[in-house]
Amino acid sequence: MASRSTWFQGKSVLVTGGLGFIGSTLAHRLVEQGAKVTLVDSLIPEYGGNPFNVDGIRDKVTVNVSDIRDVHALGYLITGQDVIFNLAGQTSHLDSMHEPLADLEINCRAQLTLLETCRKRNPGVKLVFASTRQLYGKPDYLPVDERHLLRPADVNGVNKMAGEWYHILYNNVYGLRATAIRLTNTYGPRMRIKDARQTFLGVWLKLILEGKPFEVWGGEQLRDFTFVDDAVDALLRAAVTPEVDGQALNIGGFPPVSLKTLGDALIRANGGGEMVVKEFPAERKRIDIGDYYADDTRFRKATGWEAKVDLDEGLAKCLAYYRTNLDKYL
Amino acid sequence: MASRSTWFQGKSVLVTGGLGFIGSTLAHRLVEQGAKVTLVDSLIPEYGGNPFNVDGIRDKVTVNVSDIRDVHALGYLITGQDVIFNLAGQTSHLDSMHEPLADLEINCRAQLTLLETCRKRNPGVKLVFASTRQLYGKPDYLPVDERHLLRPADVNGVNKMAGEWYHILYNNVYGLRATAIRLTNTYGPRMRIKDARQTFLGVWLKLILEGKPFEVWGGEQLRDFTFVDDAVDALLRAAVTPEVDGQALNIGGFPPVSLKTLGDALIRANGGGEMVVKEFPAERKRIDIGDYYADDTRFRKATGWEAKVDLDEGLAKCLAYYRTNLDKYL
Repeated sequence: MASRSTWFQGKSVLVTGGLGFIGSTLAHRLVEQGAKVTLVDSLIPEYGGNPFNVDGIRDKVTVNVSDIRDVHALGYLITGQDVIFNLAGQTSHLDSMHEPLADLEINCRAQLTLLETCRKRNPGVKLVFASTRQLYGKPDYLPVDERHLLRPADVNGVNKMAGEWYHILYNNVYGLRATAIRLTNTYGPRMRIKDARQTFLGVWLKLILEGKPFEVWGGEQLRDFTFVDDAVDALLRAAVTPEVDGQALNIGGFPPVSLKTLGDALIRANGGGEMVVKEFPAERKRIDIGDYYADDTRFRKATGWEAKVDLDEGLAKCLAYYRTNLDKYL
Repeated sequence: MASRSTWFQGKSVLVTGGLGFIGSTLAHRLVEQGAKVTLVDSLIPEYGGNPFNVDGIRDKVTVNVSDIRDVHALGYLITGQDVIFNLAGQTSHLDSMHEPLADLEINCRAQLTLLETCRKRNPGVKLVFASTRQLYGKPDYLPVDERHLLRPADVNGVNKMAGEWYHILYNNVYGLRATAIRLTNTYGPRMRIKDARQTFLGVWLKLILEGKPFEVWGGEQLRDFTFVDDAVDALLRAAVTPEVDGQALNIGGFPPVSLKTLGDALIRANGGGEMVVKEFPAERKRIDIGDYYADDTRFRKATGWEAKVDLDEGLAKCLAYYRTNLDKYL
């Protein structure tokens, strides 16, 4: 593996969904490493894009507000890039059930168009696609490794599965280089907190900072969490590690915790707060997947990646960030 | 399981892709069993639809020529149906690589629209979706059962995978009843023979009947073959067996044969002919999946299905059909 600290120096890098939670955090890191960074984001209000997320690097990146469904804009933006971090997507499971065709347009059609455009205009590019644990559905066994069947439990999962496989396919058939990272619950500064569209943890943070009780649905479910800096590190390592081309690999993090334990950790990190445990609402129950945590051995072995920020430290960083910047995320 | 011979009596049944190879053969059987049959077909020239396929039952079925992407036509046609055999699709692997977005429109978007329409206008319907072994890609082990990972090797495979999973999902979440049957190489009267878009075996038949040599690419690959009457029997059994709701199940047939052995069998059945063994063309090689044959134990156990027409009998029936009707398929 090349040294990441020099590898990106002078490289042209496009981040789709670049004003979003993970995309913008990645952008900060890429700027530090001397990359020429272009961010494309649709700023669809229900998605994760927030112009404030590039506060501090605004003059050091090119921001192009457009939708990845916009073929002509995308063609222009893709040309000449060395690496594309392809993070744009509809991420709300519930929205995907209410508006399945909109989810399909973003998570299938636009992905296929992007790859076709790469094939025609930039066949030497390396792509890193942000996939999701949602593809596995309700696990048969834990921890879930990459031999587990994909059995998505919502429209978002089906469409992301197709999006992931377009990437693998274009790698295998056309010689584009592409890797998919199946992210689990990623959290940290810059995540959407105004509602649960990105993660329930965002809403918990908002409520606890507003001095209100937050609701835990169920509470016994085990989940693993990746702090955003660790997720960004995984994406960067995927970009510079040819051994992972053509693969879709899990990342996880620290040992899983129950949602109640997570709630307790948040209250502890905040120095106070109130959690209310509730029954799972029926509409969510139907698409919930129970316990999940990843076996990320393959990715760690291939790239040397390991999660560094544990839950207590990560939650403390979130609270510090939103205490200062809460108004920018409401 | 209900008796199939009486179960369909008086039932309203829609077949998408109903003028195609399998759809029209299914229609003949459904008419025999007293169903009220509606066939919808786009008659896109590159696909499998052929009006001659309903010769003999033309006055006993309703034919609606329209594209399943036509939301309004589809909404009208779906309403009031007891069963939908959802067989419409783009099936050419090579075309899917040349026109990936067209394949997506048919195999993803139209399928999702169909399911949304069922959910809103006919939530009690039973759907049987024609899926494909292509979803498995290049097998890890043989025979391939349903625990094998899905790893599609072409755009058609990715899109059909999404189409299949929309069906499973709508079964699980919305209470529609849906089953997917992963068909292997299906052959028989009424298949497209003017080119290899549906199956290479079609072209072989055409050439041998025209007294010309047919080409075998590679020749050592093992494949299993299902005669169309057996495939139709599997679809009918899937429709009347609640135990298979929410499942995607393989069907296969007799023990696999190499393509050279198949060629020899065809020459024998025809009483003469010439086979030329060639190297695999590069463009096909990239999306070929090597040996494949199915383990269909789960479907057989659940439904009592078994393949009845072996290769020699099946090929003889094909030759007899096309000797009489060759001009209708050129």
